[in-house]
Amino acid sequence: MSVARIAVVGGDGIGTEVTAQARKVIDAVLPGVEYQEYDLGARLYNRTGEVLPQSVQDELAGHEAILLGAIGDPSVPPGVLERGLLLKLRFDFDQYVNLRPSKLWPGTTSPLAGVKPGEIDMVVVREGTEGLYVGAGGVLHKDTPAEIATEESLNTRHGVERVVRDAFARAERRDRRHVTLVHKTNVLTKAGSLWARTFAAVAAEHPEVTTEYQHIDAASMFMVSNPQRFDVVVTDNLFGDIITDIAAAVTGGIGMAASGSVNPERVYPSTFEPVHGSAPDIAGKGIADPAAAILSAALLLEHLGQTDAARRVTEAVAAEVASRAPGAPLRTAEVGDRVAAAV
Amino acid sequence: MSVARIAVVGGDGIGTEVTAQARKVIDAVLPGVEYQEYDLGARLYNRTGEVLPQSVQDELAGHEAILLGAIGDPSVPPGVLERGLLLKLRFDFDQYVNLRPSKLWPGTTSPLAGVKPGEIDMVVVREGTEGLYVGAGGVLHKDTPAEIATEESLNTRHGVERVVRDAFARAERRDRRHVTLVHKTNVLTKAGSLWARTFAAVAAEHPEVTTEYQHIDAASMFMVSNPQRFDVVVTDNLFGDIITDIAAAVTGGIGMAASGSVNPERVYPSTFEPVHGSAPDIAGKGIADPAAAILSAALLLEHLGQTDAARRVTEAVAAEVASRAPGAPLRTAEVGDRVAAAV
Ligand SMILES: CC(C)[C@H](C(=O)O)[C@@H](O)C(=O)O
Ligand SMILES: CC(C)[C@H](C(=O)O)[C@@H](O)C(=O)O
Repeated sequence: MSVARIAVVGGDGIGTEVTAQARKVIDAVLPGVEYQEYDLGARLYNRTGEVLPQSVQDELAGHEAILLGAIGDPSVPPGVLERGLLLKLRFDFDQYVNLRPSKLWPGTTSPLAGVKPGEIDMVVVREGTEGLYVGAGGVLHKDTPAEIATEESLNTRHGVERVVRDAFARAERRDRRHVTLVHKTNVLTKAGSLWARTFAAVAAEHPEVTTEYQHIDAASMFMVSNPQRFDVVVTDNLFGDIITDIAAAVTGGIGMAASGSVNPERVYPSTFEPVHGSAPDIAGKGIADPAAAILSAALLLEHLGQTDAARRVTEAVAAEVASRAPGAPLRTAEVGDRVAAAV
Repeated sequence: MSVARIAVVGGDGIGTEVTAQARKVIDAVLPGVEYQEYDLGARLYNRTGEVLPQSVQDELAGHEAILLGAIGDPSVPPGVLERGLLLKLRFDFDQYVNLRPSKLWPGTTSPLAGVKPGEIDMVVVREGTEGLYVGAGGVLHKDTPAEIATEESLNTRHGVERVVRDAFARAERRDRRHVTLVHKTNVLTKAGSLWARTFAAVAAEHPEVTTEYQHIDAASMFMVSNPQRFDVVVTDNLFGDIITDIAAAVTGGIGMAASGSVNPERVYPSTFEPVHGSAPDIAGKGIADPAAAILSAALLLEHLGQTDAARRVTEAVAAEVASRAPGAPLRTAEVGDRVAAAV
């Protein structure tokens, strides 16, 4: 019997190269995982016009987690694969916790002057199934001077409360136990009030967790001027999209940025993927850095309850990155080998 | 006869202190301006419950520009003054160009390692009268588990086209002549398509201006990893709110961040104000830095067609800031005196 069933969607460009290393590391730390590879992304789309065939989605649903590399290729119109695969999985598999840890690791350099490894250590818990991502809205009088276009942000108490609860639960397991709510309550008064009231209610159940509120504009500024102040951040879908990229930037870029689109109850599979893209320019050369993909595999292991394995993978990646000689050429497979050997 | 009629809204905290210096500098560079001071902000609100009495708004409408200090005080519920004054003026006075230059000035330090004064020089042209700022949306079943809250982003071809045109016109007057559109077209497909198609149409009329598109998340990252690449940025109301604060952060914080909420046709008065807040903690001490307020006055002069005066004020502020001894105490009035003497 397998210890877990994982679907692997390498995807486009460097995606397949980095997921191969993530698999290698999972096998080293947790033998007995059963994998099924799915060929999704630009190739399938260009061949068939389909992004996620229903039969594949049904098969994915039978797995405990999806390890994803990257999708996207210049041959496909922008947005098609993102909406048809990434966002579809988030919505259909109710992956409401979009998890993005950001840490300034030893061996990496922040673009911020004077900020040292270890000083930045936060996790953004981004809502993944509501807000402006639902696709509501419309267009009238297209291509005329009278055109209007609307986008609607939909937010439910149900959706907000569950993700806020998740953020507080994570804060309970961290040293600093601090949660920052990021929104724009002074302008988005309807959704902002729902988020603020829900946050206050959940906070009242966690007296040992300290809390703070920041507007998205102020939070974006603090991400640059004082990212050290953040521990757990909880925010809506779009604000989370933005703030996690700033967090990645100040921790040295997306080279180490892992993410999980998580259905915490495990009713549906969760997706784990590096934040970086398919990087067609370096694809096939064996020089892509698999660190973020392997760290995403650690988030996957954590999600499966393999806490010890997750910790060992994270530590091995951190050690490997810290040991790199500055400027030395990187071989994708060798990084995977070293991390696999170290776990 | 006066050369211009300017309404001055010092507002709260350090607001009145910094606008006093801005007035001083305007008087030095352009004698004969007629001022009318209006006492708006927390004091008025706490005394009368009103934020912007109709009679005051009617009087403001008779001015060519409004010089604003800062509003906001802990005694007033968050959002009340912002929506009742700042946003109300933007909407009622059709201030559709929200202008935010960001420059790394000599004498200021970027938090980004290795970025030198002069290297960052951009202006964000943020739409000011549409998008998620219109206040559309609603709440159902408030304070029950069934609560939903919506926010609606409204975008018109009319509103998008005029601000995009303004951005290209500004780019024509700059050295690099480069305009970046920032949106999230891969997710916000309706509004994103309107923005992208409008941008392409206006770009076609400006063959000498180079253009680029970035998603808001990527743009936020580039603001940190490579802010040098931006020249003119045009974007919607909310994305502009966020991105201008990141731009301010990477150019050393909001100490030098000026802004204008502009009605380019001058049918209505435009508002010019520093991006910083009322800073109640240092109010009344005479130690607030008036640089951003004076730079806002320069934007005001530019708007009134006083291009030469605007340039002299900007250069005088830059020289004053560059001449500051690091760590030396700052006196608000002395900064104003020095800049006034230099113009
Ligand atoms: C590709 C895109 C749809 C996606 C998002 O906006 O969520 C990406 O930016 C991310 O952060 O995962
Ligand atoms: C105070 C607030 C309403 C305002 C905004 O969101 O536009 C401010 O952040 C700004 O950028 O001028």
